Amino acid sequence: MPPSSSPPVLAQAPFLRACWRQPTPYTPVWLMRQAGRYMHEYRRLRQRVSLLELCKTPELAAEVTVRAVERLGVDAAIIFADILLILEPMGLQLAFAAGEGPVLHNPLRDASDIGRLREVVPEESLAFVLQAIALARAQLKPEVPLIGFAGAPFTLASYMLEGGSSRHYARTKAFMYRQPQAWHALMAFLARNTARYLNSQIAAGAQAVQLFDSWVGALSPHDYRTFVLPHVRALIASLPSQVPVIHFGTGTAALLELMREAGGTVIGVDFRVELDEAWQRLGAVAIQGNLDPAVLLADLAYIRQRVQRLLAQAGGRPGHIFNLGHGVLPATPEEHVVALVEYVHELSAREASRAR
Amino acid sequence: MPPSSSPPVLAQAPFLRACWRQPTPYTPVWLMRQAGRYMHEYRRLRQRVSLLELCKTPELAAEVTVRAVERLGVDAAIIFADILLILEPMGLQLAFAAGEGPVLHNPLRDASDIGRLREVVPEESLAFVLQAIALARAQLKPEVPLIGFAGAPFTLASYMLEGGSSRHYARTKAFMYRQPQAWHALMAFLARNTARYLNSQIAAGAQAVQLFDSWVGALSPHDYRTFVLPHVRALIASLPSQVPVIHFGTGTAALLELMREAGGTVIGVDFRVELDEAWQRLGAVAIQGNLDPAVLLADLAYIRQRVQRLLAQAGGRPGHIFNLGHGVLPATPEEHVVALVEYVHELSAREASRAR
Repeated sequence: MPPSSSPPVLAQAPFLRACWRQPTPYTPVWLMRQAGRYMHEYRRLRQRVSLLELCKTPELAAEVTVRAVERLGVDAAIIFADILLILEPMGLQLAFAAGEGPVLHNPLRDASDIGRLREVVPEESLAFVLQAIALARAQLKPEVPLIGFAGAPFTLASYMLEGGSSRHYARTKAFMYRQPQAWHALMAFLARNTARYLNSQIAAGAQAVQLFDSWVGALSPHDYRTFVLPHVRALIASLPSQVPVIHFGTGTAALLELMREAGGTVIGVDFRVELDEAWQRLGAVAIQGNLDPAVLLADLAYIRQRVQRLLAQAGGRPGHIFNLGHGVLPATPEEHVVALVEYVHELSAREASRAR
Repeated sequence: MPPSSSPPVLAQAPFLRACWRQPTPYTPVWLMRQAGRYMHEYRRLRQRVSLLELCKTPELAAEVTVRAVERLGVDAAIIFADILLILEPMGLQLAFAAGEGPVLHNPLRDASDIGRLREVVPEESLAFVLQAIALARAQLKPEVPLIGFAGAPFTLASYMLEGGSSRHYARTKAFMYRQPQAWHALMAFLARNTARYLNSQIAAGAQAVQLFDSWVGALSPHDYRTFVLPHVRALIASLPSQVPVIHFGTGTAALLELMREAGGTVIGVDFRVELDEAWQRLGAVAIQGNLDPAVLLADLAYIRQRVQRLLAQAGGRPGHIFNLGHGVLPATPEEHVVALVEYVHELSAREASRAR
């Protein structure tokens, strides 16, 4: 479906055209965590403000968002925020311990905790994200699309139940298997609130949204179908059909067809599956990915070679959005990220002009 | 190839017959970490001795090995040990911090560190493992096979380079991409020494061996083929063909065909791929797996239902060894593990008698 709501200059943006599988003069590229700790300027800012302060100060969040686009020359901006922000107005106490990742001080422990979760009105409790989107949209060049995002229900539920990151998701799965009714109530709650949040982001100025189901690869296909798919489908169905939705996960090599079934204009795949195989399995859908972020730790010649290989796998088909398989790693040299974007543009444009 | 070296009573053991895809009266089952923290008796023992002390005291390691079989009624024993033990005689300083997993105090930092690694003579520096195997073999009922094991080269290399567990394997991959020659030298070293170690375990009394490539699922298929496969193939080719080799990994949904290409009598798969799909892709090979260990946190009725489902996926084909997709989780109720083994035996025997 062609984008009808974006202004004309945006509708022609390679990133948005690729979402709809329309031909582009080169392969559009953006990077998960393109504004982040690998960047000198970002680290300097974070010496002054915490992650939560940064997220909650619209001027700063917008600035970080826009500066990353200017520095890298990527084809889309993604609003600087965190997938866990939505958990605070639900009633969870969120903190980011230095070097240890997110911590929730009052994780869900039983079914009764779910009944106490509060519905989120993004215009009230997440207004800072919507303001950051409006500010970033106003500051970005008019032809650069802005991506909004949210965590998907399973990934959010895993943080709510584990109280932070997890290796085995034992509490999450135990809850899912032992209390399926309460699980489905939690997932429906999260799907409903996340849809509301993403709709607000779109209203505030986002031209596309990404749904991060970062940890859903911890599930078997059977469990995904039973415990996750209906909720993601309901969530995506609640978003406007003219706005592209990128449906992303990691470790999803066995889940791709089911993720597609759940929905999404674009399916985001990580590096654990080869791009050409993923695309063959997924069929007529746009695909985002999937360079291993660790490749950016190698030297430039090697990075260039891996970009070339990935573009060859995409084979010049319309609908490829170049990205990493997961976020930029903090140890990545900043100039390697700049070079990556240049390589994608240069090598894909050459391929595209050869194809004409 | 039929087993020719095991004594007759062992050659008829369902576990070994299943390795060779011979029919069995029921589906054999054993569990990764079947002797471990979920067990009351084990936890009591560990109050007195550390993990390393336990591994290095053959009488205790053998006792823990044998007691788990007696408690659970599983169809195979696996020697109590740790995949990282082999790193100490190579020159790495190994410790297990309480609750934090393994730590290597002098991880590899550059190519020159590889030249300083020492070749391992298992009969000298790992004699305690071989003695534990001999003791356990003598104490086990004669019809119960004993499995030896080792870490596979990639998984060992990741610990050596990261200095412990890892989420992104950034150091490992950076080394692999930036210094491919040194990487291949490290992998060849690990393959050679691991083969020697497994051969010693077989000589000491193991009837089968499992190769744990637990973290290889962090790699793309392309990287697996380039940086790992040749070394695993060389390793497995160095083992006696009449001893079954279980080739195991997690997160390997996109790697299964390549793992099979590398070798193994049995391919061990985790729960992230459905068993029937995995087997269809793998073709004529035995398969081990693949219940999500978190299912054991559910109630007994649910566990039974999931066992039934998994056995239905295996479809009574010879060559299925029931196991979890990864080790038993510490929070697992002991009686659930006992029940699991009973369910596998009962339900698969019923299926087998129905098929006759």
